Amino acid sequence: MSRIVYLNGQWLPEAEAKVSIFDRGYVFGDAIYEVTAVADGKLMDYAGHAARLMRSIGEIALECPVSADELLAIHREIVVRNNLVEGLIYLQISRGPDDRDFHFPKSPKPTLSLFTQAKKFIADGPNVVNGIPVISLPDLRWARRDIKTVQLLYPSMAKMEAEKHGAADAWLYEDGFVTEATSSTALIVTRDGHLITRQLSHAILPGITRGSILSLARDAGIPVEERPFTLDEAKSAAEAMITSATQMVQPVVKIDGDVIGDGKPGPVTKRLRKLYIDYHLSNLI
Amino acid sequence: MSRIVYLNGQWLPEAEAKVSIFDRGYVFGDAIYEVTAVADGKLMDYAGHAARLMRSIGEIALECPVSADELLAIHREIVVRNNLVEGLIYLQISRGPDDRDFHFPKSPKPTLSLFTQAKKFIADGPNVVNGIPVISLPDLRWARRDIKTVQLLYPSMAKMEAEKHGAADAWLYEDGFVTEATSSTALIVTRDGHLITRQLSHAILPGITRGSILSLARDAGIPVEERPFTLDEAKSAAEAMITSATQMVQPVVKIDGDVIGDGKPGPVTKRLRKLYIDYHLSNLI
Repeated sequence: MSRIVYLNGQWLPEAEAKVSIFDRGYVFGDAIYEVTAVADGKLMDYAGHAARLMRSIGEIALECPVSADELLAIHREIVVRNNLVEGLIYLQISRGPDDRDFHFPKSPKPTLSLFTQAKKFIADGPNVVNGIPVISLPDLRWARRDIKTVQLLYPSMAKMEAEKHGAADAWLYEDGFVTEATSSTALIVTRDGHLITRQLSHAILPGITRGSILSLARDAGIPVEERPFTLDEAKSAAEAMITSATQMVQPVVKIDGDVIGDGKPGPVTKRLRKLYIDYHLSNLI
Repeated sequence: MSRIVYLNGQWLPEAEAKVSIFDRGYVFGDAIYEVTAVADGKLMDYAGHAARLMRSIGEIALECPVSADELLAIHREIVVRNNLVEGLIYLQISRGPDDRDFHFPKSPKPTLSLFTQAKKFIADGPNVVNGIPVISLPDLRWARRDIKTVQLLYPSMAKMEAEKHGAADAWLYEDGFVTEATSSTALIVTRDGHLITRQLSHAILPGITRGSILSLARDAGIPVEERPFTLDEAKSAAEAMITSATQMVQPVVKIDGDVIGDGKPGPVTKRLRKLYIDYHLSNLI
């Protein structure tokens, strides 16, 4: 069934939703995005995603073409129009069309688009039951990964490289330390039970799920350390995992072929996944 | 007057040329581009741009949707349809539309678009007569700048930052050495008359105009060194310049407010510009 998508105030069948070939999102990668998970037909951790959206907008001096209330209303309406029960809402704002010029347009007309993807992610799938293998690759992305821009060619290339090696994803590293996974946060659990993930900086995206997991872990008495860790430390960790809005918490059981812990999803990973689901399924809006 | 643009086999008024909001060029920055200069209604250094296009295509495992002959024919036809005498042809190829997934589509349908821009660039304008001031900024782009992708948000931000400082452009540096300008090659002339520019690597774009200038310089007996140089070396150089398809050779007379040479376009810069124009205006196709 064709989806109904949102484009600049219009609701359109997906095949009719088009932007100019002059749109700066197309010509300059001049656009930011957000992905919000939907469960039971409601929004999961929406406040976090809306806040990060406004941060991205500010960092590249964009303007949001709609108010915060309108944005929430659009999110709710796209769920209804697509009978979406479980999946995600993808939102993108570009600086809009203009004759090609590296200078920002003087009177920008931003392009706002949203579409949905149905996806079962709450019930434990094979990736959650068995964990996933990842490979490591150098992080070749630009230096402002804290801004959620659509400049995603390298993460996409890295996913293809992972697939070629029979892995589900890649963990990226820079100067000897893990930054993050291609489109999720990388975390490990040390043998003495500490949850480790890199501290926020320009090097990584401020993951909304990451923030929620760290908060839930602290509340549950799990010691949390926000600091860089090496690939070697990850490979000898007790557990490894990734977090993102629609993967929530997913165990990582191999890095570059090296088995993590006993090769099965570990107790801290499972506990965090359960804490996350329990909390957020009770707080959908 | 509205331009006629090319989009996937169709000739369209520019306002009607649109791509899907699912196009990977829009959603992932998954697209490459080329810019070819047009003078006297003919193509300038087309062979170089066509060759680099095929290189970019290969580097990100794209497929070119048309043959080399068709591509040349499209370039010629867009000139005619727009009565373009002097200016440029912009060409972009994206991996095309697909439901959003970091993995490349299994059956990609690449999007090929071309448009023209009229621009006087042969006769010496004020930038050529007076030279331009630039500022320096850290190079925050991704690490595969040798591929001409549309992931151009940082160069665009750098142009805006330059403008804010009353400069025309920015020279980017990394690990203490100049990489290139935001959308052109950076070159200097030492006090003993050597032309210096960074050697090709993943750190910079293999500039077509750069290659032509180095070749013309060597033929004219100007010593050429392809090696990294620091900002300090640039600031104390006899001359500085940038090269690109539609700027050809443009003198740089200030870097971060420091005057280069005597603050006027230097003799080597002027000579290279003349050599470039003389050669290429005689070799238009």
